[in-house]
Amino acid sequence: MRFAEPVEVVGVDGDDTLWRCQDAFDDAEVEVARLLAPYAGPEQVARALARTERTNLSTYGFGVKSWTLNVLQTAQELAGPDAPVVPFLELGRSLLTGPVEVLPGAEEAVLALGRTHRVVLVTKGDLVDQRRKLAASGLAGCFSHVEIVPDKGPATYAELLRFLGVPPERFLMVGNSEVSDVHPVLELGGWAVHVPYRTTWVLERAETPVVHERRVTVASLSEVPALLRADSA
Amino acid sequence: MRFAEPVEVVGVDGDDTLWRCQDAFDDAEVEVARLLAPYAGPEQVARALARTERTNLSTYGFGVKSWTLNVLQTAQELAGPDAPVVPFLELGRSLLTGPVEVLPGAEEAVLALGRTHRVVLVTKGDLVDQRRKLAASGLAGCFSHVEIVPDKGPATYAELLRFLGVPPERFLMVGNSEVSDVHPVLELGGWAVHVPYRTTWVLERAETPVVHERRVTVASLSEVPALLRADSA
Repeated sequence: MRFAEPVEVVGVDGDDTLWRCQDAFDDAEVEVARLLAPYAGPEQVARALARTERTNLSTYGFGVKSWTLNVLQTAQELAGPDAPVVPFLELGRSLLTGPVEVLPGAEEAVLALGRTHRVVLVTKGDLVDQRRKLAASGLAGCFSHVEIVPDKGPATYAELLRFLGVPPERFLMVGNSEVSDVHPVLELGGWAVHVPYRTTWVLERAETPVVHERRVTVASLSEVPALLRADSA
Repeated sequence: MRFAEPVEVVGVDGDDTLWRCQDAFDDAEVEVARLLAPYAGPEQVARALARTERTNLSTYGFGVKSWTLNVLQTAQELAGPDAPVVPFLELGRSLLTGPVEVLPGAEEAVLALGRTHRVVLVTKGDLVDQRRKLAASGLAGCFSHVEIVPDKGPATYAELLRFLGVPPERFLMVGNSEVSDVHPVLELGGWAVHVPYRTTWVLERAETPVVHERRVTVASLSEVPALLRADSA
């Protein structure tokens, strides 16, 4: 990357950038399909759940509690009053209390970024769940600031940058989501490094990755410190 | 109040300090009891729900989605597989989409505070729901900063004050909850104004109001600007 001006602040996403997240949802949704198998096939369950999630997104927002409520609603729609309830509550609870697995190399990468830049965690979802994951990850000390946001639209990023006192041209966002970490930051005039994860939630999948001079895709978070060093050298 | 040093930052709580909140939960819980009447009496329902909320608080945190999940779990415990589900999902949704009623005099009080002090909204609960209520209240422009916190323990206030760059002796918190707005701030060495609301969630009820030289109770938010002016005069 060839930065017009030096990057001051690096934003780093949490779920599936620093620690595993979608794998646990994928596993839980296999279990949802299994529990609803007497009433609907797995593809019908997946489609119905995605539709419920899309419909409820503006009311519920992101996170495990929203997911649990969406699963319960979908089950009622597909199975009527016979739908199980307690097993879905338990699935949600297990997502909220399960182990937090930091991705290989993530800690070293964030520590390296912190030696040359202000590094800010920018993560969306439930406050309680994100705080828990950050604490369990052991990475809390790596960030000069932590911002848990209700969504990652351009307006939210714009508010965060005003608050951090950094112009978009000096902000770089690193994350696994085209939709949440790349597009809105480019739209504001910032920079983005996309680090894809092997699985992406259906609502975060981009139709086509945007081609842009201020974005790059790398295979691993470990490559990001060198991108910034190469430029400042 | 006789402040040892001038107050720099005034924190103001949201739910039942700026806008009505508990009334809607109280009404919803009447409806929960009605729906569960074939299985348990209203007092048994209230006790069971409070127990579930207490047990799940560290996992779910505060807010409407947590409340909905707690109601669904309680209903399963009391009524088994016959328990209704869809009506509880709808009750939760109505709490997340209902009108936001700003308390009389709240806007004028916060605007008056803003003319002499940095005023910060400090509110806990769901990110999406608190953002929605703030936007719908029309009060967003009254605050120099908005902090939506997962809990209101002393550690959370301490982190906020570090972040705001204000020592506890120069911070005053205004809110309706002894447990969330008064006790933790006094514990840190800050000041608190308690503005009771007519109904308090069972988990926020204090055994005995603490008597302390750095706290005062007033009947209305409208009295707070004069408390601060009287001192600085």
